[in-house]
Amino acid sequence: MPALENDVFLRALRREPTPYTPVWLMRQAGRYLPEYNATRARAGSFLALAKTPSLATEVTLQPLARFPLDAAILFSDILTVPDAMGLGLYFVDGEGPKFERTTATAESIAALAAPDMASLRYVFDAVGEIKRALGRSVPLIGFAGSPFTLACYMIEGGGSPDFASVRRMSYARPDLLRRLVDVNAVAVAAYLNEQITAGADAVMIFDTWGGLLSHAAYRQFSLRPMREILAALKPAPDGRAIPTILFTKGAGASLDEAADVGASALGLDWTVDIAKARRELGRRVALQGNLDPLVLLTDLDTVVRETEAVIQAAGPAPGYIFNLGHGILPGTPLAHVAALVETVHRESRVNPAQ
Amino acid sequence: MPALENDVFLRALRREPTPYTPVWLMRQAGRYLPEYNATRARAGSFLALAKTPSLATEVTLQPLARFPLDAAILFSDILTVPDAMGLGLYFVDGEGPKFERTTATAESIAALAAPDMASLRYVFDAVGEIKRALGRSVPLIGFAGSPFTLACYMIEGGGSPDFASVRRMSYARPDLLRRLVDVNAVAVAAYLNEQITAGADAVMIFDTWGGLLSHAAYRQFSLRPMREILAALKPAPDGRAIPTILFTKGAGASLDEAADVGASALGLDWTVDIAKARRELGRRVALQGNLDPLVLLTDLDTVVRETEAVIQAAGPAPGYIFNLGHGILPGTPLAHVAALVETVHRESRVNPAQ
Repeated sequence: MPALENDVFLRALRREPTPYTPVWLMRQAGRYLPEYNATRARAGSFLALAKTPSLATEVTLQPLARFPLDAAILFSDILTVPDAMGLGLYFVDGEGPKFERTTATAESIAALAAPDMASLRYVFDAVGEIKRALGRSVPLIGFAGSPFTLACYMIEGGGSPDFASVRRMSYARPDLLRRLVDVNAVAVAAYLNEQITAGADAVMIFDTWGGLLSHAAYRQFSLRPMREILAALKPAPDGRAIPTILFTKGAGASLDEAADVGASALGLDWTVDIAKARRELGRRVALQGNLDPLVLLTDLDTVVRETEAVIQAAGPAPGYIFNLGHGILPGTPLAHVAALVETVHRESRVNPAQ
Repeated sequence: MPALENDVFLRALRREPTPYTPVWLMRQAGRYLPEYNATRARAGSFLALAKTPSLATEVTLQPLARFPLDAAILFSDILTVPDAMGLGLYFVDGEGPKFERTTATAESIAALAAPDMASLRYVFDAVGEIKRALGRSVPLIGFAGSPFTLACYMIEGGGSPDFASVRRMSYARPDLLRRLVDVNAVAVAAYLNEQITAGADAVMIFDTWGGLLSHAAYRQFSLRPMREILAALKPAPDGRAIPTILFTKGAGASLDEAADVGASALGLDWTVDIAKARRELGRRVALQGNLDPLVLLTDLDTVVRETEAVIQAAGPAPGYIFNLGHGILPGTPLAHVAALVETVHRESRVNPAQ
């Protein structure tokens, strides 16, 4: 494996000194980019885009051609894993993801098994193709949904404002929810290991909905299976350890426990005091975040000022990656993204993380 | 003022020993009660119910006739204050509250003033009437919305899943949002002081939406004005200090700072580790919470088990009031509420907070 020209992101994940703060943006390949919308129109659907390695490669690279981002992230969807379990993923425009079949009953949960990774080959093919296209430029992040977040969609059959049926199950039938997240953990560990084998330089687990759970249920149904996944991850084919990022939205009250599950870094949403998180957790994990994506929907002066504020709060010490606190929103002006990236690099070079 | 027969709730707020853990439930007078629905039907509308002191008194007392709750809470709505500012509050069934006029522009915010408290006389009349009806039985909690939460509805003109326009204003026009929450803070302080004069034994500030803000914005636009309100509150007419409760939903990451704004107690939602909150904050404030209201929509065994778990986590030490982590949900079975209250009293008497 030839060394990367820009490994600032990987060094920050290992809490090593870097000449500036690396930056990438959740959902950086997405609907705010006109070229993404063109490729998606050509693909015919979101799912066709995600399932065609050449098109997934194309959209993964698009934001890197516009902005000097320090990492690429695989273009895919967290729900590819339950789709491979046979639940029948489909997307309705304006309504988000849906499943033809749910796993909300004792019978359907008992019948569930981790999928054959061959059915997810299109993902690993995309990882390989993206790596070849990236060459030595920047690292590639692979990812998966957390076992609990996958369970939310599998039980509910789609999105929900509060996933009430899942929270009810966490209290009334913890045995069922445990079985479901345990199957998901086995599947996600295998899935991430295949992405690592195919060339991913780092992997991230997206726990979008863990923050809805009671604290005890978050530990049991979200943190515990994520810990098991992290323990099951293998090194890269050339023996390098693969750094990991764990992001639970809305779980700022439980960061201390999340810092102990074995991830290299924690993602933070915008509600978290990143200066305090640095002070309290910075010796144990790297941190990634946490600008509110809505800032990018304001004006250029505000984008620069708020980006500077996050950089200053997160501090210049090693072990910090700039990102948003959640995915970039459709309608975000390209000039605002450019200003954000430029501000992160400029501001952090003034006082680098040495 | 004759002494109350049951002042366990007030003693817990002062972190004094109590023979058992007091319990009341947010939205305990509400749609899960058939007698509430009957009174509301008689009133014709939610707003008529809230604006007629005799009917507000009737529904305030209803849950106390069914369950041995340790406090009553004024039946009203947080949006009475902006309504009195002339925004024209109305309710659409199934859609929640709306305002005829919003305060989203520099002009409308500049024109805003705290209302004459005479226009909220119906609230203070209700407080007086409820106190007379309660006699010496249990204390009465008065309440108001937080300046920021009121601002959310005033800017948006109604509810919203994420109050994006308000968050955008917090970044792009902090001057406007500051002026808005400052006017609200003056209004809420006067409003709570009038409730205290009318007989409220404790007051609570509901900050339903502060948890959507970035950490810096939460401090500036939610915590700061709540601190100013708390500093402006007067003692009761007979000189007693009035204990206060502050509840921000979704701000578990900022409890440490919330504990410093001057409230007697903090309300906690179900995502917070109440055992950890006790250890870290229990010497500075009392705590109230934090059972997920969805637990009441499961089954009797689960209700008892999960209630016991919260009691055990919150510990028997003084300074704890049992409550839900948010308001009781429509459709909650009465037998589940009865079991919850019985379990709190029984379990906490085993090992009282002496």
